[in-house]
Amino acid sequence: MHVMILGGAGMLGRKLAERIAADGGLAGAPVQHLTLADVITPQTPHGFLGATDCTAVDLTVPGAAAGLLTTRPDIIYHLAAVVSGEAEADLEKGYRVNLDGMRHLLDAIRAEQQGNDWRPRVVFASSIAVFGGDMPDVIGDEYFLTPMTSYGTQKAMCELLLADYSRRGFIQGIGLRLPTVCVRPGKPNLAASGFFSGIIREPLAGLPAVLPVSEDVRHWMASPRRTVGFLVHAAGLDLALLGGRTSLTMPGLSATVGEQIAALERVAGPKVTALIRRERDPVIARIVDGWARGFDTARAAALGFTAETEFDEIIRVHIEDELGGKLP
Amino acid sequence: MHVMILGGAGMLGRKLAERIAADGGLAGAPVQHLTLADVITPQTPHGFLGATDCTAVDLTVPGAAAGLLTTRPDIIYHLAAVVSGEAEADLEKGYRVNLDGMRHLLDAIRAEQQGNDWRPRVVFASSIAVFGGDMPDVIGDEYFLTPMTSYGTQKAMCELLLADYSRRGFIQGIGLRLPTVCVRPGKPNLAASGFFSGIIREPLAGLPAVLPVSEDVRHWMASPRRTVGFLVHAAGLDLALLGGRTSLTMPGLSATVGEQIAALERVAGPKVTALIRRERDPVIARIVDGWARGFDTARAAALGFTAETEFDEIIRVHIEDELGGKLP
Repeated sequence: MHVMILGGAGMLGRKLAERIAADGGLAGAPVQHLTLADVITPQTPHGFLGATDCTAVDLTVPGAAAGLLTTRPDIIYHLAAVVSGEAEADLEKGYRVNLDGMRHLLDAIRAEQQGNDWRPRVVFASSIAVFGGDMPDVIGDEYFLTPMTSYGTQKAMCELLLADYSRRGFIQGIGLRLPTVCVRPGKPNLAASGFFSGIIREPLAGLPAVLPVSEDVRHWMASPRRTVGFLVHAAGLDLALLGGRTSLTMPGLSATVGEQIAALERVAGPKVTALIRRERDPVIARIVDGWARGFDTARAAALGFTAETEFDEIIRVHIEDELGGKLP
Repeated sequence: MHVMILGGAGMLGRKLAERIAADGGLAGAPVQHLTLADVITPQTPHGFLGATDCTAVDLTVPGAAAGLLTTRPDIIYHLAAVVSGEAEADLEKGYRVNLDGMRHLLDAIRAEQQGNDWRPRVVFASSIAVFGGDMPDVIGDEYFLTPMTSYGTQKAMCELLLADYSRRGFIQGIGLRLPTVCVRPGKPNLAASGFFSGIIREPLAGLPAVLPVSEDVRHWMASPRRTVGFLVHAAGLDLALLGGRTSLTMPGLSATVGEQIAALERVAGPKVTALIRRERDPVIARIVDGWARGFDTARAAALGFTAETEFDEIIRVHIEDELGGKLP
């Protein structure tokens, strides 16, 4: 099997490549060929025994996707995106990368299909940012998409494209609305959701962290390991079960910031949580106020997607996967 | 006030221009200037006393929208589109006209805004084709969009763009999901919904008509006069009342084909309905089977949009507006 990851240099792309390398396969089939593409050259995952192509490519350039697809991968993960903060700060870049990039990809797939029956599975990383504004506490699978950011708008538009190109038989598409990934490793990025990870990651590294919102803020989260698990699970799913509803909200853990901090104290002790400084940021508080707090993800559950059930587990996953199992 | 109608040569565009000409104004203000644009040159409406510009322009050509907007209209009606049958038959043309056309328009508005505070109202003609597939009998205002055609997909994507550009302050947008217009005057077009009008229009003109579906098929309809009324009402609405939910489903009349025919018999007699020939077309029957049957349009009702309440009225409007008040 040949697997392509667009956004292969990003956090999720790297972790997905490492998972495939560790498993040696995907969806019950061996993976002989891995293509990783991003605007910067991705790294070959450790220990992968098959062939790896790591390519720097800008999907916003017309024609760039075509060159990439001549090898006809069986599964294409489309994880490449400009994050929410950047899409809001730079309207044109957000639409160019997040919307035009998807369209170029889909049209390049169509163009490559002349005279053959190659119909790749396309797993698209959507986001719960497709929901926004006044929302119920628990959002069901048939609730309308009401993005309140340009990023969420672009993800919702891509979901529509994915469904239409799937319906018309050009791809086998599935869109996963990913929860906020927590604990996100590495440096903070431009996402306004950064503090949900920061208040866990930084104290566990012995560093101070700022909490810009009140402790009763509730959010929908999953660990990086679990999020990669969603992507892996989507590779083997019988897509006929989607019934034409191509995108679905992934399960997550609905937790308040207060519950996050309590879990951190249980796992790592009060000296660690003492590193969290409360410093209200009204701008971030207002943005986060417009985000979804919880979902009923019955469809995803019926299809076998599962998430963490308590925040302690999310912290333990971070300690195992990022800190070599060691507390500070 | 300066009003621009994109799609000004189409059925709704012409009727809207004639209504504005007859009223002499819009939203309580006199209209001094009317710009009508389409891929073919639109006609000046009868009796309009202000200035009229009728222009042939192709919005899919980059830069074309910019030239049109230098006169900074106060209200822009965007009614230009490729219909459902054509968008399905020609994927690329559908996306180019229905999606890229909208994006070019919105980006041209942004470009024209440098150094001024011109923020036009954009009234976008969306469609109930944004709904599709397995649907409840009555669709509420928070039900998710599930288009099952490329046309519906493109309309849903445009709704998202309209909302995002409104939220960011570039336009004052409102999207109206129009019911199937019935009785549609003139020749049949490529829309699969054509027979809903055909079985009324043709017999009233003394001509035979084909009914390709069973009489229990239920659909959501409004007369052309009423549909133009929606567009006129949207011009004067306080958009703050939309609460960031920029697009809304317009009221309509939910009627079965059998109820349509019974109304026609009441209004015009059995000799007229005898001109309807039942001839099942499984392709059309299957398409129509995936369409919405009815809505609860509480939001639109609260904002003052109203529709016909019985099909007899829709037929009488057709006889008044298209047949000079005369039965055959």
